[in-house]
Amino acid sequence: MTDAATASLFRYTYLATDGAARLGRVETAHGPIDTPAFMPVGTAGTVKAMRPEQVAETGAQIVLGNTYHLMLRPGAERIARLGGLRRFMNWPGPVLTDSGGFQVMSLSTLRKLDEDGVTFQSHIDGSRHRLTPERSIEIQHLLGSTITMAFDECTPYPATRDQAAESMHLSMRWAKRSRAAFEQRNGYALFGIVQGGVYEDLRRQSVDALTDIGFDGYAIGGLAVGEPHDEMLRVLESVTPLLPDDRPRYLMGVGRPQDIIAAVARGVDLFDCVMPTRSGRTAQAFTRRGTVNLRNARHADDSRPLDETCDCPCCRDYSRAYLHHLVKAGEMLGPMLLTAHNLQHYQDLMAGLRGAIGEGRLTAFLETRGSEYASGDIPPSA
Amino acid sequence: MTDAATASLFRYTYLATDGAARLGRVETAHGPIDTPAFMPVGTAGTVKAMRPEQVAETGAQIVLGNTYHLMLRPGAERIARLGGLRRFMNWPGPVLTDSGGFQVMSLSTLRKLDEDGVTFQSHIDGSRHRLTPERSIEIQHLLGSTITMAFDECTPYPATRDQAAESMHLSMRWAKRSRAAFEQRNGYALFGIVQGGVYEDLRRQSVDALTDIGFDGYAIGGLAVGEPHDEMLRVLESVTPLLPDDRPRYLMGVGRPQDIIAAVARGVDLFDCVMPTRSGRTAQAFTRRGTVNLRNARHADDSRPLDETCDCPCCRDYSRAYLHHLVKAGEMLGPMLLTAHNLQHYQDLMAGLRGAIGEGRLTAFLETRGSEYASGDIPPSA
Repeated sequence: MTDAATASLFRYTYLATDGAARLGRVETAHGPIDTPAFMPVGTAGTVKAMRPEQVAETGAQIVLGNTYHLMLRPGAERIARLGGLRRFMNWPGPVLTDSGGFQVMSLSTLRKLDEDGVTFQSHIDGSRHRLTPERSIEIQHLLGSTITMAFDECTPYPATRDQAAESMHLSMRWAKRSRAAFEQRNGYALFGIVQGGVYEDLRRQSVDALTDIGFDGYAIGGLAVGEPHDEMLRVLESVTPLLPDDRPRYLMGVGRPQDIIAAVARGVDLFDCVMPTRSGRTAQAFTRRGTVNLRNARHADDSRPLDETCDCPCCRDYSRAYLHHLVKAGEMLGPMLLTAHNLQHYQDLMAGLRGAIGEGRLTAFLETRGSEYASGDIPPSA
Repeated sequence: MTDAATASLFRYTYLATDGAARLGRVETAHGPIDTPAFMPVGTAGTVKAMRPEQVAETGAQIVLGNTYHLMLRPGAERIARLGGLRRFMNWPGPVLTDSGGFQVMSLSTLRKLDEDGVTFQSHIDGSRHRLTPERSIEIQHLLGSTITMAFDECTPYPATRDQAAESMHLSMRWAKRSRAAFEQRNGYALFGIVQGGVYEDLRRQSVDALTDIGFDGYAIGGLAVGEPHDEMLRVLESVTPLLPDDRPRYLMGVGRPQDIIAAVARGVDLFDCVMPTRSGRTAQAFTRRGTVNLRNARHADDSRPLDETCDCPCCRDYSRAYLHHLVKAGEMLGPMLLTAHNLQHYQDLMAGLRGAIGEGRLTAFLETRGSEYASGDIPPSA
């Protein structure tokens, strides 16, 4: 079989566009993904505080796993022996794994980067490990990832032009090695990652390098790392028009609902972020009127649901007063319910975006949602 | 309406007996309870790590709430304003609340006991509180409890005969005041609590005092507080034959599966214990072959389910290796799945006991289960 033939079952098709925004579908070996899509993060083989069937109930079709965490614990070879990550964590749908590069930089200690790869110390037990493009791809293969990410270095922010260029060129050499190491199979995919910091010419060089190599999808990396919102949008506006329009585009690690809305309008298809799950564990809930902190004492006697426009189990069955009580009492059900709500909020947002693109009313949707998010929480009842 | 008329909708009927064991049903204002029954503990208005619908899925028909915890946080008057405990926690079935007496003794500090009641300091914030029989009953009324427990002092173990007698007599005077303070309503119940430590004559006096007052059910208190298993059985054997056979009998705070089996055989109908939920949060799982510690490294590569005889979501969808990973990684899904399994194990045990009593084969059931529980965990696979 040729690469072209085997890759044909991983397919992105767009059904409608509205400006730069695209309504589409990604077909994979493990099921479809309707885009724009948000991928809940299942760092260590679990979307924290959720049973996988509850994740699916929110409408999520794909979850993300972290190569760095899983290689350290329980280990990629172990997961492979146990049937792969999807079976291990009981998630029948597609899984995307990152390459480990980002977490090595943000979590590990005593890092040593060279042309071949990176050596680092585990944040869990201090043990020494090494990641190279070849090993990252091998780990993701062992995990059985539906979508494998090329191994890259995430350029820090801020970075000088020279630093950003050097880092981007290294990532492009690693992208080529990642492609060579990846075993193409039906319905599986390898994504390249555009780097280059906030420098448009570097981003353009990165896109050229990646499209020369050829990937099944293209991610935009090195954003949501501290740069201003407008800077992120400027980079997106310069990058997305350069990307092949028959491949999905993935903005890594983004983000707030407002960021996702803005990126969808600029042609991005896939998103992931720990925000809905992490916020759920710190009593922060996303609503159309902005975030609500359930720890706040003003909720103690509030019999209303968290979000009257949401029909998730958290909003259907419980009062703000109860959620506040769970948070104050340190009860696990608090994070469980708030995580479920936040993931539902994100999935409802994506469904809303898909509907708006399909019906050519994205501009109106953006205006309505934008002003809702800015309007603040529902005032306390009289 | 007379007391007799209003009390008539809370009704215990037994359908079969096998030796001293009883197969029965309790009808309440909030639904039936098939007995012998195990009541999961929802201390602070939540069965820890479980959504209430998941608790119901295990077969549980009634949950327990703790007056001490709920009066301190979020407060009984607040719960009443929010529609009562059942609505607050989204549990449509019956709820039993304890009187607060036991937790005051085990959790609070700076306790001062007098004839009228007990003053104590909250273990949460050091605030001063007072419980009397009247206030305990009022709190349980505010919570909307289906089954209210009389306020008592749980006699410590060990206690001299004089100490046990003094404590029991105080509890009997408080039982009378509890009865007077309780507002009888259709389908709701007040249970008295037999005390007297390990002294059979004191237990008999306590039963006489309570049955003179008249209660809708009778609990056996002051057991599972550190006394040997045989001592507990001896007390049970002396007490249960004295209790009216048309009222449910509740052994408070018990216990291990072996304890429950032994108590059912001696005529007990209702149980509660934190063991399945607490064990679920400390990686201990109940199986027919005894408890399994999922933290143990021997599970790291074990692809088998936790308990091959169990069809709960935890055993149906996950390997021991995955559960071990969740425990090691400190992931919330570990306690969530293990709690669900443990509660399922307890409910399956109760269903097994009910089936055995109904078919007159309790002796055989006890022998089989007893030897299973003693046989130890399934050996690792080859």
